[in-house]
Amino acid sequence: MDVEAVIEEVLPRIRPTEDERAFVEGLMKELEKLAVETIGELGLDVKPYFVGSLAKDTYLAGDHDIDLFLAFPLETPLEELRKKGLELGKAIAERLDSYELAYAEHPYVRARYKGVKVDLVPCYDVKSWGDVRTAVDRSILHNRWVLENLNGRNEEVRLLKRFLKGINAYGSEIYVRGFSGYLAEILVIKYGSFLEVLKNTDFMLRQKIIDPGNWLKREYETAMRTIRREADADRPLIVIDPVDPRRNVAANLSWERYGVFYFRAHQFLERPSGEFFFGKEKRSGNYLEELRRKGTHLVTLAFNAPNLVEDVLIPQLERSARGFEKALSREGFSVLGWDVGRKGERAFIMLEVDRRERERVKIKPGPEFFTERGWDFYRKNERVWIIGKRLFAEKAVKEDVSGVIVELIEKNRIAMGKNVRENIRNAEILLDYVPKELENEAYLFLSREKWNLKE
Amino acid sequence: MDVEAVIEEVLPRIRPTEDERAFVEGLMKELEKLAVETIGELGLDVKPYFVGSLAKDTYLAGDHDIDLFLAFPLETPLEELRKKGLELGKAIAERLDSYELAYAEHPYVRARYKGVKVDLVPCYDVKSWGDVRTAVDRSILHNRWVLENLNGRNEEVRLLKRFLKGINAYGSEIYVRGFSGYLAEILVIKYGSFLEVLKNTDFMLRQKIIDPGNWLKREYETAMRTIRREADADRPLIVIDPVDPRRNVAANLSWERYGVFYFRAHQFLERPSGEFFFGKEKRSGNYLEELRRKGTHLVTLAFNAPNLVEDVLIPQLERSARGFEKALSREGFSVLGWDVGRKGERAFIMLEVDRRERERVKIKPGPEFFTERGWDFYRKNERVWIIGKRLFAEKAVKEDVSGVIVELIEKNRIAMGKNVRENIRNAEILLDYVPKELENEAYLFLSREKWNLKE
Repeated sequence: MDVEAVIEEVLPRIRPTEDERAFVEGLMKELEKLAVETIGELGLDVKPYFVGSLAKDTYLAGDHDIDLFLAFPLETPLEELRKKGLELGKAIAERLDSYELAYAEHPYVRARYKGVKVDLVPCYDVKSWGDVRTAVDRSILHNRWVLENLNGRNEEVRLLKRFLKGINAYGSEIYVRGFSGYLAEILVIKYGSFLEVLKNTDFMLRQKIIDPGNWLKREYETAMRTIRREADADRPLIVIDPVDPRRNVAANLSWERYGVFYFRAHQFLERPSGEFFFGKEKRSGNYLEELRRKGTHLVTLAFNAPNLVEDVLIPQLERSARGFEKALSREGFSVLGWDVGRKGERAFIMLEVDRRERERVKIKPGPEFFTERGWDFYRKNERVWIIGKRLFAEKAVKEDVSGVIVELIEKNRIAMGKNVRENIRNAEILLDYVPKELENEAYLFLSREKWNLKE
Repeated sequence: MDVEAVIEEVLPRIRPTEDERAFVEGLMKELEKLAVETIGELGLDVKPYFVGSLAKDTYLAGDHDIDLFLAFPLETPLEELRKKGLELGKAIAERLDSYELAYAEHPYVRARYKGVKVDLVPCYDVKSWGDVRTAVDRSILHNRWVLENLNGRNEEVRLLKRFLKGINAYGSEIYVRGFSGYLAEILVIKYGSFLEVLKNTDFMLRQKIIDPGNWLKREYETAMRTIRREADADRPLIVIDPVDPRRNVAANLSWERYGVFYFRAHQFLERPSGEFFFGKEKRSGNYLEELRRKGTHLVTLAFNAPNLVEDVLIPQLERSARGFEKALSREGFSVLGWDVGRKGERAFIMLEVDRRERERVKIKPGPEFFTERGWDFYRKNERVWIIGKRLFAEKAVKEDVSGVIVELIEKNRIAMGKNVRENIRNAEILLDYVPKELENEAYLFLSREKWNLKE
C-alpha cells in the first residue's frame, strides 16, 4: 500500500464526523453563553476564550476535552485573579454536571458536562508575550497564532498527532517527554504537511533551530538568548515559540522520544501502514523462554500502587528502580535493565539480573588480631588469616537475589521515591516468575520489544 | 608433652655438634689467616672481622654462612673503599674454591670454600653509630653488642630462630618482612629466654617500644625522633637499635608476620609441640573438592619464571596478581583471593573467582541514532532502543573467565610487574585444573590453609 492510500484509510478514522462536530460546536456555544451570563451575574470584567485542539479544530475524533480560559484584565492583581477566577470557575461549574478542583500553577476548576471534561482556567488577557504573567497566559496567543497560520491544514495536524500517539511519542508530560499538540501544529505549519514533517526528521535535527515567528529578525537578542540556553541544555530541537521568543516549544522533548519519531518516520515512509497510527500489537512471546535464551534472571517486585497520578507515580517508580540497580550492583549482581509500571491496583518494578545466586563463600574481614574481639573472631572461625593488622575468615553465603533484596530493603540501603517507599517495603518479591497479568509485560521487557525501534 | 620436654627434644636437633663447631671454628681461623696475609701482601690497613650468627655463635646446626667483613679506616674515601675492598675480596677469594660478584649498597665478593658460602664485605671500621657511613658498617657494632650482652643464652636464641623459621616468620627480606636474626637476639637478651619472649607477645605489642641500649636516657632527642617516625609508619614494634638510636631494628617487620608469631606463640604455650620448630606438614587435601565446597573457580596462570632472585620476583608476581584482581573485578568477576609462587622453572599466579562464566547477554551501547554509524548499528542488530541520544542493543556474550583474561592481556589492560610481564603474556591459563606439581599449592590456597592461623 502506498502512502496516499494509507492516509486515505486513516483519515476517516481520526477526522471528527459531522455529528460529532455539531455536538462539539453546540457544546462550546452553550458553554460560552453560560460563561458570559455568569460573568455578568458576578459583575466581572472577564472574557471567555476557548483554547486547545477543540478551539483550533485540530482535535482527533472522540477526543473532546474543552479548555475554557477566563481572561482577566492585565491590571488585575494576581491574588484577585486567583480568588475571583476560582469563584467564577465554580459558579460556571455549578451549572454543569459535576466538578472538582485541580492544581497547576494556580488552582482551577475541572468540570464535566455531557460526558466531556471542561477545564475552567483563569488567566490574564494578554495581547503579546510582554504581557505574559502566568504559565497559562500564553495559550490564548498560541490559539490565535495557529488559527491565523494553519490555512486549512487541520487534517495534516490530525494525522501527525495520531501518528505521534500511535508510536508513543505524543505528550509533553514529564514521564513522556514527547511532542505537544502545539509543537505538532507548528511543524505542520512549518513543513506544510504531515508527510513533509516525516520527510524532514533528519533535516530538522541538523538545522536544529525552527523559528516560525521570525524572532531572529524581530527580536534578535532575546531569540539568541533562548537559543544559547537551549543549546547548552542539549535539546534535540529548538523551536522558538512564534508567540514568545523566550521559549523553546520543544523544551520538554527528549532525545529518546525524538529518536523514536525519527525511526518510525523512516519506517513509515519506507513501508507505510496504518499500524503506525493506532499502535501496533507488540510481538508477544513467552517470558520464561526469553529468560532461558538470555541466561539471565527476572526479579519482580509487585506491590499496591499508592494513590498517585501517573506523572508522579512513574518517575518515583523509575527512581526506585535505579536505586535497586545501584544497590544490587554494589552487592555483586549486575542489572541488565529494568522496567516499571502499574496494572490496575498493583504497581511493579522488574529487574533483569545476571544471576540468581551469588557466590557461596565470601571473605569476611574481622577485627585487629591483638584485641579481645580479635580472639573471639579467631575462636569462632574455622580458618583465619591476617592482612595488615586485621583478621580475615571465610563466610558461607548462599543468598539468592531475593534474599539480598529483602536485606537491602530492611537495612534501608536502597534509594527509593518517597511516596512509593512504604509500598515497596511490603512488596512481594518474585524470582523468575510473574503473575498472569504481568506475563506479557515481562516478555516485552526481557525481549526489549517494549523499546525495540525495529519493526 | 610439656614445654620443657619439647625444648629438650628440639635442642639437640638445632645445636651444632662438637664436630660441626670444630669445623666452623677451623674454617674461620683459616679464613682469618688468609685474610690477614692477603691484606699484608696488598699493603692495606684493613682489619678482618667475622660477623653474623657464626661469629656470635647463634647459628643453627647445618647453617654455615660466613660473613667476613673487611674494615677500612674511617678516613678512607668511599670510592677507594669500594675499589680496594673489591680488589681485596677478589684476592682472598682467589685462594678459596670459587667466587662471584654480588651487589648490595656496594659490590662485594661471594665465595665458596669447603662447601660453605663466604661473603667478603668491605666496610668502615666504625667504633660507634656516629661513624656509620654505609649500610653494612653497623654489623660490626651489632656483633660486638650481642657478644657483650648475650651472657651464654645462645641456645635460647637458637630456639627462637628455629621457632620463627618453623612458623615462617623468619627473615627481614622484603618478601618475608619477618624477624631478623639480630632482632631475635635482642628479644632474647631483653626478655631473658626463648619462653619469656613467647610469653611476652601481647605485652611487647602493647609496650611497643623496646630500648635495650637505653637510648631514651643517653640520646633522648635522637631516640624520640626515631620513635615518632616509626610510630607514624605504624610499625608493630619499635626496637631502638642498641648500637644506633636512629634505627628501628624491627622496621621491616610486618603486622602480618608479627600476627603469625603472636598466634603461634599462644598456641605453642597452650599445646607445646616440636612441629612449631620444623614446620608442620600443612593439612593436605583435594583442591577440586575445595572448589566444589566453595562453589568458586580457580584460574591459574603458569609461565616460565624469569631469572630473578626471590625478593625481586615475588613482589612482582604479587603486583601482577593485584593487577588481575582489579581488572577482573572491572569485568564483572569477583576475585576472592590470589596466590603466587615459583616451583622450579615455572612461576604461577592463582586467582579464586566467583564464577566461571559471565552472563550470556550484555547490553551494548551504540552510536548516536542520527548518524551514519547509528543507521549501521540499527541495521545490524535485532533489537535496538534509545537511551539519551545513543542506540543500545543486546550482545550475546558467552565468555568464560579465561577468555576474558586473554582479552585483557592482549589489550594491555592489566597492571603487571615489569620483569614478569612478558612471561605472563605467554602463560598457560588453566581453569579449575592445575598440573600435578601445583595440586597441593592449589589446595593450600583455596582452603586458606596456607595462611590459616589455627592449628
